[in-house]
Amino acid sequence: MDIYAVILAGGGGTRLWPSSRRKRPKQFLPLAPGGRSLLAATVDRVAVPLDHVLVVTAAPQVAEVRAALPALPAKNVIAEPVARNTAPAIALAAHELIRREAGDAVMAVLPSDHVVTDEAAFREVLEQACATAAQHLVTCGIRPSRPETGYGYLELGDATEGPAREVRRFVEKPDRVTAAQYISSGRHLWNSGMFFFRADRIWRETQKHLPEAAKAIESGNYAAAPSISIDYGIMEKASGIWAVSGDFGWNDVGSWTALADIFPAQDGNVRLGGPQVAIEAKGNVIVGDALVALVGVDDLVVVTTGDAVLVMPKERAQDVRAVVQELERRKMEPYL
Amino acid sequence: MDIYAVILAGGGGTRLWPSSRRKRPKQFLPLAPGGRSLLAATVDRVAVPLDHVLVVTAAPQVAEVRAALPALPAKNVIAEPVARNTAPAIALAAHELIRREAGDAVMAVLPSDHVVTDEAAFREVLEQACATAAQHLVTCGIRPSRPETGYGYLELGDATEGPAREVRRFVEKPDRVTAAQYISSGRHLWNSGMFFFRADRIWRETQKHLPEAAKAIESGNYAAAPSISIDYGIMEKASGIWAVSGDFGWNDVGSWTALADIFPAQDGNVRLGGPQVAIEAKGNVIVGDALVALVGVDDLVVVTTGDAVLVMPKERAQDVRAVVQELERRKMEPYL
Repeated sequence: MDIYAVILAGGGGTRLWPSSRRKRPKQFLPLAPGGRSLLAATVDRVAVPLDHVLVVTAAPQVAEVRAALPALPAKNVIAEPVARNTAPAIALAAHELIRREAGDAVMAVLPSDHVVTDEAAFREVLEQACATAAQHLVTCGIRPSRPETGYGYLELGDATEGPAREVRRFVEKPDRVTAAQYISSGRHLWNSGMFFFRADRIWRETQKHLPEAAKAIESGNYAAAPSISIDYGIMEKASGIWAVSGDFGWNDVGSWTALADIFPAQDGNVRLGGPQVAIEAKGNVIVGDALVALVGVDDLVVVTTGDAVLVMPKERAQDVRAVVQELERRKMEPYL
Repeated sequence: MDIYAVILAGGGGTRLWPSSRRKRPKQFLPLAPGGRSLLAATVDRVAVPLDHVLVVTAAPQVAEVRAALPALPAKNVIAEPVARNTAPAIALAAHELIRREAGDAVMAVLPSDHVVTDEAAFREVLEQACATAAQHLVTCGIRPSRPETGYGYLELGDATEGPAREVRRFVEKPDRVTAAQYISSGRHLWNSGMFFFRADRIWRETQKHLPEAAKAIESGNYAAAPSISIDYGIMEKASGIWAVSGDFGWNDVGSWTALADIFPAQDGNVRLGGPQVAIEAKGNVIVGDALVALVGVDDLVVVTTGDAVLVMPKERAQDVRAVVQELERRKMEPYL
């Protein structure tokens, strides 16, 4: 079975400002174990030869992708002329594989900006998923470890197909009570955003459910495709979706505080980057190359870059968006 | 009357780390109103021609002094080969003036690392002090505005001499109760570290009270002088000291929180340097060129330099020393 890793690296997002910027979004940040970029770590852990790795990215980020993955063949960086969310991006990759006469290959579609700490366990799930994907549309779910309200969920049915289980439906981000029910149900998995299918299959599904996207890609007018996620655009409409699941230390690094779940504390604080001096200071998340000295402060996020510093309580981590909005309002372009 | 400003710029100190470093102590930092260095602002406010300004500094800081005061004649920068505190430094300047046949000139001895916000009021006091100094040893006291335990005090007697009043004794840093008594006594002034006397007079006092210092300077072996302040070494021993006093927005910038007393708040926070974004964040003191974004934090000190960031509650401002001690213990020289 021919397997292509299709890595989605076109995302933006503001939740890791000031490290993430428009020109250098999250997937390029050195937040993976070992100091690698999230993108490079994603490529490493799929353990597929680089000629079988496609990276789909926004046109302005092609140079950054090549710098992060110097050994990747240039033709395997696929540029989206404009951002159109995941369904058109995946269809673009499928179309390219068909053009390369690899329509029968399985695509392992992987976000480029997540962390996986147990790569061996991940590869086991990856193998199960690819095997199942020879016949089916497959998604990968994560067994929930807490009543997370920030993720979508997969609701499973009873049918099984080898190691995979039937997906009854995709469910949106729940409230806290519902999320707690999901955990106790045993039927709900976090939607990890990883998908597996043959290139020709997802192309047919795109033609069926998103004909405008397929037409836009065939005509070379990508901008004419609707902007829509594969979850909404295809997976929620298609039938016969199967889920594999696993527990491989997955984290979508959705905020600075996520680092506290990924990295061990040193001297009571999680520190990525340069040195720290912490005096009566515990539970802080500290990121960036500068020396950071903390005295008598607990549970803060402190992020430094060459030109900016962010300080906020961990519990306010989502409010970094408000900072970015304020910078946009004030047209402070160099910091965006 | 010939007046020389003798500016003491040899100090070190750690209380304004990370901005102040061994190679760039506090007097070189741009903390004076208008973004000037404290040293340059000190020279500006005495309003004496530059050929009548002597700057006494540590030998390794001569270049930094010249850079800060490019119009100052090179021969007016007097280098201490080693640091010996204020009594020998002042005697060194007095000896130089005698050598220049200006022994009858009045020396206005001024620390280089203080802030004065009302320069007109300062100059009025300066004139009174210099006039009195034609005949006497003179010090300048600041009327206390709070029961400060971090300063030494002057205790006044009843005798007056023009605008000056007799100093009965110099008193050490008091405890809080004593400091409160000092305020209500009406007899106590903060010891500002400014002194006024003729060059030949202070040289005679040095010969009398610190003969080893005088001998060391005469023989060109400055290192042989004892390390002692002018307060302890001469002023507390000499008789007939007079004090002028005033209220001219004096601040010794003894910690980062002092900036909150000197500069007005913008958007609820005191900001020196680059831009800020403050969201539900008040009462913070923010220093440095980087953009600083604060969300949901109050009453912090946040100081950024190119290579280091300090975060602590304002009430812990004195504990920056503990950070510096830790850096010394870990031999992190580049940050010292």
